[in-house]
Amino acid sequence: MTIYVAVSGPADATADERSLAEEVGRRLAEGGAVVVCGGLGGVMDAAARGAREAGGVAIGVLPGESRTGASPNLAAAIPTGMGEGRNAILVRAVDAVIAISGEFGTLSEIALALKMGKPVVGLGTWELRKSGRVVEAIMTAASPQEAVEMAFEAAGGRGPA
Amino acid sequence: MTIYVAVSGPADATADERSLAEEVGRRLAEGGAVVVCGGLGGVMDAAARGAREAGGVAIGVLPGESRTGASPNLAAAIPTGMGEGRNAILVRAVDAVIAISGEFGTLSEIALALKMGKPVVGLGTWELRKSGRVVEAIMTAASPQEAVEMAFEAAGGRGPA
Amino acid sequence: MTIYVAVSGPADATADERSLAEEVGRRLAEGGAVVVCGGLGGVMDAAARGAREAGGVAIGVLPGESRTGASPNLAAAIPTGMGEGRNAILVRAVDAVIAISGEFGTLSEIALALKMGKPVVGLGTWELRKSGRVVEAIMTAASPQEAVEMAFEAAGGRGPA
Amino acid sequence: MTIYVAVSGPADATADERSLAEEVGRRLAEGGAVVVCGGLGGVMDAAARGAREAGGVAIGVLPGESRTGASPNLAAAIPTGMGEGRNAILVRAVDAVIAISGEFGTLSEIALALKMGKPVVGLGTWELRKSGRVVEAIMTAASPQEAVEMAFEAAGGRGPA
Repeated sequence: MTIYVAVSGPADATADERSLAEEVGRRLAEGGAVVVCGGLGGVMDAAARGAREAGGVAIGVLPGESRTGASPNLAAAIPTGMGEGRNAILVRAVDAVIAISGEFGTLSEIALALKMGKPVVGLGTWELRKSGRVVEAIMTAASPQEAVEMAFEAAGGRGPA
Repeated sequence: MTIYVAVSGPADATADERSLAEEVGRRLAEGGAVVVCGGLGGVMDAAARGAREAGGVAIGVLPGESRTGASPNLAAAIPTGMGEGRNAILVRAVDAVIAISGEFGTLSEIALALKMGKPVVGLGTWELRKSGRVVEAIMTAASPQEAVEMAFEAAGGRGPA
Repeated sequence: MTIYVAVSGPADATADERSLAEEVGRRLAEGGAVVVCGGLGGVMDAAARGAREAGGVAIGVLPGESRTGASPNLAAAIPTGMGEGRNAILVRAVDAVIAISGEFGTLSEIALALKMGKPVVGLGTWELRKSGRVVEAIMTAASPQEAVEMAFEAAGGRGPA
Repeated sequence: MTIYVAVSGPADATADERSLAEEVGRRLAEGGAVVVCGGLGGVMDAAARGAREAGGVAIGVLPGESRTGASPNLAAAIPTGMGEGRNAILVRAVDAVIAISGEFGTLSEIALALKMGKPVVGLGTWELRKSGRVVEAIMTAASPQEAVEMAFEAAGGRGPA
C-alpha cells in the first residue's frame, strides 16, 4: 500500500529550510511515498523538487482558484478555491505530516492532523503548551532522515530500504 | 456594523469551562455580536445558551452531514458535511475568535484565525512556542468579561455599554 | 423539529423573480422554517427580506471571504471563502430546496440536492433531460404558495397553519 | 502549459460507458493532459485506466475521508472528506470537463463548470432546458475522439498530434 505524507512549511523559507525540505521530499519518494504539499513556493516547492528528482510523485493542493504560482516540480497541481480551507484537505489526504519550521498555516495543519489522529513529525517547528505544560503530540526529529523514518514507521508503511 | 465572534472550545468540557463559555456568549450577545460556534456540545452549546438567554443570535457551523447533535440553543445550525474542514469556515465567518481551553480542534481554529489575520483571545487555552521562544500571538484574558472586551476592541466593534 | 429550506435563484433577478422569492421567504417563515440562501442580492436578498418581515430567520451562506455584499435582511451571514464550493454547504444545510428561475449556480444547487436525496421544488427553473427523455426529478410548482406547501410536505415538516 | 481535464460520469456505469471513458482517458493522456476524476469506480476508474495505460497521469479527488475504494489506476488519490463538496474542487482543478452519461453528481459538475466559465463537452449526458427552451451550454461530441479534440481546443491546449 502506498503511503502519502504531507510536507508542511512556509512559502517564505530560508535556504536551510528549503534544503531540509528537499531532502525530506527525496527520502519520502525513495521510500515509495507520495508527497503532498501546499503546492506553492519555499518548503512546498523544495519538497516537490526532492520527490521529483528521486523519480517520485508530488501533488500540490493549492488555496487559490488557479494553478498560477504552483511549483513546477509537481506531478499535479490541484487548486481548490477554498483558501485556508485547503489545509484540511491537504491533511485529510495523507497518512502522516512532516512539519518543517512554519508559520500559522503550518500550525493549522499540525493541529488538524492531530485532531484527525494522524502522526506529526516536526523539524524545528511549533511546540505546543497548554496551561503551562508541554503537550507531547509532535514527534521531534533531528534530521530529514530521522523525520522520514519516523513518518514511515508511524504511518505503518515501508520506508527507505 | 454587527461584529461576529467565534467561541471555540471542547465538546467534552468541564463545568468551569462551560460556565466561562456561557458568560462569554452572554456578554457577546449583550454587546450586539453574533456568536458563531461549532454547534455541538460543551463549550459550543454553553456559548450558544449564553447568547440566546441574552436575546442574541448564535449560529452553529457543524462538521457532519446533518443537524443531529446540534445544540438546542442555536438560532440556526449549519451542517457542512466537511468534517474538520468546517473549522476554516467557522473562522472565516468571524471578526475575532475567543478560545476557551480546547484540544487540537480549538488549536486549529486559533491557527487558522492567526493565518487569516484575525484577532484571537485566549481563556486558559493553548500557548505557542517555536524554536524555544514564546510566540505572542494570542491575547490572554483573565476573565470572560476581559475576553469579550478584548475581542470587541480588536474587532473594531462596539461592545457592552 | 425546525425545517430548513434553501431558496436558490439568481443575484441578477427580475422584479417578478424577486417578488416570487419574497413571497416564498415570507411563507416559509410563517410556516416556521429557517430560510437558507446564498446571502447576496436578487432572489437571495428577496427571500431573506420575506422571511425577516414575517419575523423569521434567514441565514446567508456566502461564497467570498467577507460579509461584503451580504443582504441586509439576514439574521446571520456566513462567508465561507470557498467560492462555488459553498453551494454544497448551502444544500447540505437544508431539508428541501426551492429553486426560482436561476442560472448555472442554481442548477448546481438543484443537482447537488438531488444527489444528496433532498427534495427540490421549482418555480420556473431548469428542466432536466437525458438522452432525449425528461427526467422528472424537480417538483414543479405554479405559485409561491404551492412551492412552499410542496417543500414542507416533502421535508416532512409542518407548514402554514 | 499542461492542460487538466476532468472526466465526469457514474460509478455505476455500463460496459459501453466504461469503454468510452477509457478511450477518453487514453486520448487525453496521449495529448499531454492530466486527467482528473472523482477517483472511484465506473467511469472514473475507466478514465484513469486509459490515462495510465497511455503513460499519463490521473488524479482522483475523492468525497470520503480515506482512500478506501479508490481506483487502482490513479497516480494519486486525494480524499477530501467533503462529500459532494468535492465536486466543486474537482471542477476548480481543471480547464475543461468531459461528461459521460452521468447522474445528478455529474450534473452538478457540469453546472459548477459552466458557472465557473469552464468548457463542458458531453458524451450522451444531460441536456439543459429552461422555460421550455434548450440552453446550448454543453458541447455535444459524437465520439471519445471528438470529445477530447473539443476539450483541448476549448481549453486552449495542445492535443493529439
